[in-house]
Amino acid sequence: MNVAIVGGTGYGAVELLRFLHNHPYVEVKKVISHSNSGTKLAEVYPHLVNVVDIEMAELDVHTLAEEVDLVFFATPSNVSKRYIPDLVDKGVRCIDLSGDFRLRDGKKYVEYYGEEMAPQSYIDKAVYGLSEINKEAIKQAMIIANPGCYPTATTLGLIPVLEKGLVNPNSIIVDAKTGVSGAGRKLSLNVHFSEMNENFKAYKVGVHKHIPEIEQMLSERAEQAIQVIFTPHIVPMTRGIMSTMYVDMKDVYSTEELIQLYQEYYQTHPFVRIRKEGALPATKEVYGSNYCDIGLYADERTGKLIIVSVIDNLVKGASGQAIQNMNIMCGWEETTGLHQLPIYP
Amino acid sequence: MNVAIVGGTGYGAVELLRFLHNHPYVEVKKVISHSNSGTKLAEVYPHLVNVVDIEMAELDVHTLAEEVDLVFFATPSNVSKRYIPDLVDKGVRCIDLSGDFRLRDGKKYVEYYGEEMAPQSYIDKAVYGLSEINKEAIKQAMIIANPGCYPTATTLGLIPVLEKGLVNPNSIIVDAKTGVSGAGRKLSLNVHFSEMNENFKAYKVGVHKHIPEIEQMLSERAEQAIQVIFTPHIVPMTRGIMSTMYVDMKDVYSTEELIQLYQEYYQTHPFVRIRKEGALPATKEVYGSNYCDIGLYADERTGKLIIVSVIDNLVKGASGQAIQNMNIMCGWEETTGLHQLPIYP
Amino acid sequence: MNVAIVGGTGYGAVELLRFLHNHPYVEVKKVISHSNSGTKLAEVYPHLVNVVDIEMAELDVHTLAEEVDLVFFATPSNVSKRYIPDLVDKGVRCIDLSGDFRLRDGKKYVEYYGEEMAPQSYIDKAVYGLSEINKEAIKQAMIIANPGCYPTATTLGLIPVLEKGLVNPNSIIVDAKTGVSGAGRKLSLNVHFSEMNENFKAYKVGVHKHIPEIEQMLSERAEQAIQVIFTPHIVPMTRGIMSTMYVDMKDVYSTEELIQLYQEYYQTHPFVRIRKEGALPATKEVYGSNYCDIGLYADERTGKLIIVSVIDNLVKGASGQAIQNMNIMCGWEETTGLHQLPIYP
Amino acid sequence: MNVAIVGGTGYGAVELLRFLHNHPYVEVKKVISHSNSGTKLAEVYPHLVNVVDIEMAELDVHTLAEEVDLVFFATPSNVSKRYIPDLVDKGVRCIDLSGDFRLRDGKKYVEYYGEEMAPQSYIDKAVYGLSEINKEAIKQAMIIANPGCYPTATTLGLIPVLEKGLVNPNSIIVDAKTGVSGAGRKLSLNVHFSEMNENFKAYKVGVHKHIPEIEQMLSERAEQAIQVIFTPHIVPMTRGIMSTMYVDMKDVYSTEELIQLYQEYYQTHPFVRIRKEGALPATKEVYGSNYCDIGLYADERTGKLIIVSVIDNLVKGASGQAIQNMNIMCGWEETTGLHQLPIYP
Repeated sequence: MNVAIVGGTGYGAVELLRFLHNHPYVEVKKVISHSNSGTKLAEVYPHLVNVVDIEMAELDVHTLAEEVDLVFFATPSNVSKRYIPDLVDKGVRCIDLSGDFRLRDGKKYVEYYGEEMAPQSYIDKAVYGLSEINKEAIKQAMIIANPGCYPTATTLGLIPVLEKGLVNPNSIIVDAKTGVSGAGRKLSLNVHFSEMNENFKAYKVGVHKHIPEIEQMLSERAEQAIQVIFTPHIVPMTRGIMSTMYVDMKDVYSTEELIQLYQEYYQTHPFVRIRKEGALPATKEVYGSNYCDIGLYADERTGKLIIVSVIDNLVKGASGQAIQNMNIMCGWEETTGLHQLPIYP
Repeated sequence: MNVAIVGGTGYGAVELLRFLHNHPYVEVKKVISHSNSGTKLAEVYPHLVNVVDIEMAELDVHTLAEEVDLVFFATPSNVSKRYIPDLVDKGVRCIDLSGDFRLRDGKKYVEYYGEEMAPQSYIDKAVYGLSEINKEAIKQAMIIANPGCYPTATTLGLIPVLEKGLVNPNSIIVDAKTGVSGAGRKLSLNVHFSEMNENFKAYKVGVHKHIPEIEQMLSERAEQAIQVIFTPHIVPMTRGIMSTMYVDMKDVYSTEELIQLYQEYYQTHPFVRIRKEGALPATKEVYGSNYCDIGLYADERTGKLIIVSVIDNLVKGASGQAIQNMNIMCGWEETTGLHQLPIYP
Repeated sequence: MNVAIVGGTGYGAVELLRFLHNHPYVEVKKVISHSNSGTKLAEVYPHLVNVVDIEMAELDVHTLAEEVDLVFFATPSNVSKRYIPDLVDKGVRCIDLSGDFRLRDGKKYVEYYGEEMAPQSYIDKAVYGLSEINKEAIKQAMIIANPGCYPTATTLGLIPVLEKGLVNPNSIIVDAKTGVSGAGRKLSLNVHFSEMNENFKAYKVGVHKHIPEIEQMLSERAEQAIQVIFTPHIVPMTRGIMSTMYVDMKDVYSTEELIQLYQEYYQTHPFVRIRKEGALPATKEVYGSNYCDIGLYADERTGKLIIVSVIDNLVKGASGQAIQNMNIMCGWEETTGLHQLPIYP
Repeated sequence: MNVAIVGGTGYGAVELLRFLHNHPYVEVKKVISHSNSGTKLAEVYPHLVNVVDIEMAELDVHTLAEEVDLVFFATPSNVSKRYIPDLVDKGVRCIDLSGDFRLRDGKKYVEYYGEEMAPQSYIDKAVYGLSEINKEAIKQAMIIANPGCYPTATTLGLIPVLEKGLVNPNSIIVDAKTGVSGAGRKLSLNVHFSEMNENFKAYKVGVHKHIPEIEQMLSERAEQAIQVIFTPHIVPMTRGIMSTMYVDMKDVYSTEELIQLYQEYYQTHPFVRIRKEGALPATKEVYGSNYCDIGLYADERTGKLIIVSVIDNLVKGASGQAIQNMNIMCGWEETTGLHQLPIYP
């Protein structure tokens, strides 16, 4: 199958290439970059020298539709919505790593993204690509709204207890921490090395774009409107996300019981791993891989359940899950091309 | 004034030396180290070459009592309680950076520290050295139980709203993050460079020794028994602590109102700085200094107040506050010897 | 083919597993660990949970010889030499990642390693596994002395100009820098996070074990005795080695000419990549991969050639090259199982 | 004494403020910033909140000359040369942390800086402010060309053996490594966190601006023209420089003899510390302080002397040395305001 990647100079694109390079059924036919069209990808990313010999091109919907069957958009917000409708109309499936098609409620998009939303009819067509949860819908989708990094770690950690009704859905606090690569390659004082190294910061408290996305997914699974407190922080490391989550248990459950519930819930999902009692996952334990690792601690003293969920923000939080979704769409084994183990240490 | 430092090879001791080196009224007469007695400090810490010319000695209570007026214990748990009673009986004031005299309730000590408590009569003499809050009692104290790093950042961040009764005292969640130096110089796989670098971990969830210490202080200030959820994490950086705290507001308050409350509360306390609306402190902004910087965000949507409090764990969280307490005990200006600005970047 | 790995709790072993997990022709039958026999590997390395389900065992030469065709020794010095002779006598091929079989001159081994050498007759059987240079000999070998990390980066960078006689072989200075993982998982104050983070150190100047190994290889290729100045440093990062090398050019050559020479020299070797004029490789550009990237700068002003060579110390500098050598020994494509691209950023 | 700082938003300026804040004889009257005039410094650098209450201003030579006695220029190249002549003519002493007045040979400036040089008559007035070496001249100077970071570490490490004639002056190789803060606060992909973290790079090989500066100083002290090979690298840490230097010894000297020579040479210079035999300094051992620590290793096997010299690039390599020079110019104790110990760990 031939695919294209739009957004060739971002980290999302190079991660897609890292996995697609070893994918048995896919060839990357085109890499699109507006800012670098005409340039070889390996000139922008020397780690690809001698390996990836692709010259970046301008986006042209017509030729793209002729050359490829599927397009990945690894672009900032407010780009994919301009191209995906046309591509889909021409029969090209699209996986969008940006937020343009994630929110069903256009007002939320306007509020949190500060721009006009995508056309509603195409939003309606889009499937939210949380692979483990929406697998059936993903199989049929023409447009995948690939989940954000924080929402992936957060919702995978919360859905089992929410669905089972074991916790109070309006007590959710998410204290989230991300590595710096989530900020992308765009220069900013905030992620200037000397400012970020040996530093730990909270940011966008109460206003982060991922809040409505998390609430939408959780509300859907819990079948009631849910509000979450979500506080993102940035960690002086390149990769990794941890969501530490706090919820009120409706009854007294032991850590052991809950772990068993999670293991059963994710039994057929190879990329979600549940830690044993007494162990909590660290971000390095999923580094470079598509795993989401989850640990639980039921604090009997206070009645709170603490859930720790980790992913690599660029893999399960972006490009890895996008490929997982492509595999599902194409009827291939979900893990195809994603067999890389975490790189440790 | 002559002082001694017990625990000469730990990070607490070298931080004490860093500040005492520029303190106008104090001379460090003795540095005690059981494991390194007979060795020059500069051989263990080459950054002190040519500057600190002290040979470490064994602890002998009798000679110590003759030579110095005040002793800092920068030792692990279960050491200072064996020596402080004797020293105090001989008229030597003691500032204990360990946890041995912090908990008034002996059972809690046994539960969380797994050892016998210090003699109750000396615990009764000890003053909890949270400088800004207990200043009057510190002036008279013979024993200072110098607060832990997490409790310092946490309680300074919570006390103003708790005392004013603006929040529900049983809704407190503390999601805390520390730099690695808090783990001290003792070798452990957990803080082996290759395991800790590019990694972010939760640890000791629900069982950390600082839980009863935080609860004791907050209960005292709120005049009611308080339980907190406290989840510590470790960040791949050397110094810095951030406590991100969540509490339910009893009524609707604006961020602006609360900031004003905090500014007034800490008006006469030079080491606590309150950020303006829209700004939250980062750990690097207090690096190497004795400041505790606090930022606030009242989330009107959910009724939660989010408090972010940062310190340098080795300074305001340990040695800096110990010197601040010494200054208060001796009637000197609180900031004496502590004028160092944060080192940035 | 069935293989075993000895030294199961070290970083070398988990890197071998990372690549062998995706190797089409090899099954890891046994992981040997003296200190952790009876323990599941995933308990020591949680990143392998649900993926690698191997219980570590004690080393028993007899059963090993029955069960596997090839054994990797990812052990410290002075271990493999006790077992390899027996294994080889039983027809098992061995790839030794330690230094036990690298030095042909036993006196050098005694001098630099401080222990008795391996039996000379088995040293004579061993082939130095610098894959690109000794490919023919590796094909026939029963014992591979897998090169050290520094020697790999260093000799691959120097051999082309040395063999062509373009530089003065007695002018070589190697200023080398390594990530911390090269020090392994053994605890040491030197690589304690708080001591190593935000720090840069030289170490073992003039006495490092890799000096005789580098000199042996270079002397062989230059067909004359060569002494090098070799100064290793440690960088606050987990992975990566850079050797910056200085040699006197015998004549005036342009950077361009020399680059062409290197490109031709390594033309048929997929894991060595030569940078274009004006570009020098950074360690991150090979992170997690088996590449050795080389850049050149001919300083016409001073007549020095500066060569910069980078590898991932745990991959091309250890486990990756070991698998490359196994591939060569077995007649498989050299790159089998090693297709992983560098992980960037 | 009243002073001004030009270049208020750079790291050089905040480091000057950090030390001047505790300097007993100096008041910072003005902080000049073209890009941020009218803004409070603490808004750009929150670590200065409540401590430094200065609003940045535009540069006006006339008012400046009336208000202050001395001006620090912590500006990029090609700024100070436009203002210093006027200021000096008005009797204001200037300490320039940029390179504008360092090179006596205008052609070199043009070649390496790519711009016109400062007026020759003012260059002639300028004294190169390597405090330990040029102390007498500094006392009288109106203009101090404060040395670059690399030249400081490098020349302090080489001058003793060069002056004594113990080494071949044309054999010098300097392999230098710097923390990232040397690149300043200006955004660049090169020092974007995700690109620089877990990475080690060489840069500007053969063309760095500090080459002519090092050669000028060494040639002067050796009383003959000297060329050096100088290769800078960048380390994933914020602060610290190490120069590892290689020179041919003219005769056989022991490490011990050479250490003694260095100790005598720097006997009266409190900021240079010589390590004992067997010890080499690490960058963290001078972190945040004005020390230059030097270690030596005479390799008898190859006849090379290896010199390791470390500084904090922002302190002894910039602002600390600038204050040291001000102290010397004003007849104060050289160490005034610079008593801060290295911050460790």
